[in-house]
Amino acid sequence: MNQLVDGEWRTGAYETTNDDGAFERQETTFRDWIGDEGRFPAESGRYHLYVSYACPWAHRTLLARSLKGLEDAISVSVVDPFRDAEGWQFTPDKDGCTEDHVHGADYLRELYVRADSDVTCRVTVPVLWDTEEETIVNNESREVLRMLDTEFEREATRDVDLYPEGYREEIDEVIDAIYEPINNGVYRAGFSGSQEAYDDAIEDLFSALDRWDSVLAEQRYLAGDRLTEADVCMFTTLIRFDQVYHTHFMCNVMQIQDYEHLWPYLRDLYQTPGVAETVNMDHIKEHYYTTHPDVTPSRIIARGPDLDFEAPHDRDELDGEPPAALVRAD
Amino acid sequence: MNQLVDGEWRTGAYETTNDDGAFERQETTFRDWIGDEGRFPAESGRYHLYVSYACPWAHRTLLARSLKGLEDAISVSVVDPFRDAEGWQFTPDKDGCTEDHVHGADYLRELYVRADSDVTCRVTVPVLWDTEEETIVNNESREVLRMLDTEFEREATRDVDLYPEGYREEIDEVIDAIYEPINNGVYRAGFSGSQEAYDDAIEDLFSALDRWDSVLAEQRYLAGDRLTEADVCMFTTLIRFDQVYHTHFMCNVMQIQDYEHLWPYLRDLYQTPGVAETVNMDHIKEHYYTTHPDVTPSRIIARGPDLDFEAPHDRDELDGEPPAALVRAD
Repeated sequence: MNQLVDGEWRTGAYETTNDDGAFERQETTFRDWIGDEGRFPAESGRYHLYVSYACPWAHRTLLARSLKGLEDAISVSVVDPFRDAEGWQFTPDKDGCTEDHVHGADYLRELYVRADSDVTCRVTVPVLWDTEEETIVNNESREVLRMLDTEFEREATRDVDLYPEGYREEIDEVIDAIYEPINNGVYRAGFSGSQEAYDDAIEDLFSALDRWDSVLAEQRYLAGDRLTEADVCMFTTLIRFDQVYHTHFMCNVMQIQDYEHLWPYLRDLYQTPGVAETVNMDHIKEHYYTTHPDVTPSRIIARGPDLDFEAPHDRDELDGEPPAALVRAD
Repeated sequence: MNQLVDGEWRTGAYETTNDDGAFERQETTFRDWIGDEGRFPAESGRYHLYVSYACPWAHRTLLARSLKGLEDAISVSVVDPFRDAEGWQFTPDKDGCTEDHVHGADYLRELYVRADSDVTCRVTVPVLWDTEEETIVNNESREVLRMLDTEFEREATRDVDLYPEGYREEIDEVIDAIYEPINNGVYRAGFSGSQEAYDDAIEDLFSALDRWDSVLAEQRYLAGDRLTEADVCMFTTLIRFDQVYHTHFMCNVMQIQDYEHLWPYLRDLYQTPGVAETVNMDHIKEHYYTTHPDVTPSRIIARGPDLDFEAPHDRDELDGEPPAALVRAD
């Protein structure tokens, strides 16, 4: 597979399956924590976020940054949605992409080697970079999401708490519950190396979607009446579903737009201030269809359905509402 | 490509694209005609039909045979839905497949060589075989459909005319009109070798589907108030659409089940006596997903939506009805 081995770049198949043909996601490598007492204190202007608009894991962190109003505190570089054997790349001339604002690197892997010259790992987004110590603080999306949410309260320009007291146990349970069948489930389906592994992934995925569709009949958000990190984690999978996962990853039992509650729930989240500007559907579609020749060898980008994420959702008839800072003025 | 060249089997890529990446279907080779005055008079028991349940072109001829009640007059052999570099194959032990009832051949190509030892062509279904002259009468689906419909009136056990006087011009126009954008359009999308060829195919396909959806708001069948060959030609594409073409061939702008009129129209046709027994969805799904590694390299069969073709369609509120012999007794 494409990865760094002792700091050296090796190319090969990017995704890995086990002997039964089941996709196995590798663990992320850098797991430090932002916090006022430790090595990485929260400070405005010190940290930098490397993302792809295409990647649902990176998208979590972009959403936290946007919902909290951390745009001025934490700057962002955006890689090219097309990823070849060289890995994630900076192509500032391409629409929606940026240069590496910190180092002017050509490839994301250069940052990994700069952080640890002997590193052995896949090169993934998101990356939370510390410009002071010149290293990667963390590249695990769930943890970066949590850090942006809870450790930058002073730097945030919006009074938004995505991990509120009284909901925390529920939020962590939901994030755990949706990870394997839904967030990772679409990858397990799309990268399966056997019919059995695919069938298992599809069964898990649609059972879980059916279940959460029922839950959302009764409550506005996944953890209850508050918009939380759990919704952020669900959103980045659902927003890609009908355009990409349904066709490219053959998750074609149902479209999200055919679900009675998940579809208005998705529109409700999309219409929450700060969310729509983190969605770049061109990058999403280009990435998946052109980057996995083992799945779509033609690298042709499927047209996909016309989805109106701006259509009324009527979810405000349920109990609960977005944090005050996220309610539209109009 | 896989084909016979001077009677010798050559393997290679099965489908062909031109310099612009557009799929180009090759012309069929055997184009004789059944008729009482000629070399191939209509007779019960003389002709044999080679089909795949998976193939929409062969499906046309199975439908004509079934709708007309020609089961006893024209026997059928069914090939394996999985086609590898050896071409269509007889695997009688597999569910829904048969032996070659006429010659006990292992491969369909053997019949082509038997018909013409120097033949140069692709080996396709349907094949209408003459057991008396030991040759292929015709392997062009539209012509075999027409022959079964109009040349076996004496042998038919149902009083069904799919090419009735007064509708013939309209029928031929409709068959012409739907061929390139719809019947062949899904293949043009799925086998395109360039983004531009794909985009063109998708535009043609969904413009045509939108147009015929509007037509079917006003009339029960494509050529007016009578079930005709035009509906047979449309049916075999629509029945495969949501399970196969939408995902495997990336025709994912709309599903047929989302069309206001095409979806009940499809159910109406499916529920017409003689139709449902010609549909083998397992063969359809196995064929497409496992036979085109250039499209789906994993050869994993997508689960697909749950479609209820037996649900009420209410199309009988429109003018027109099936031929009397096709109206259900209940």
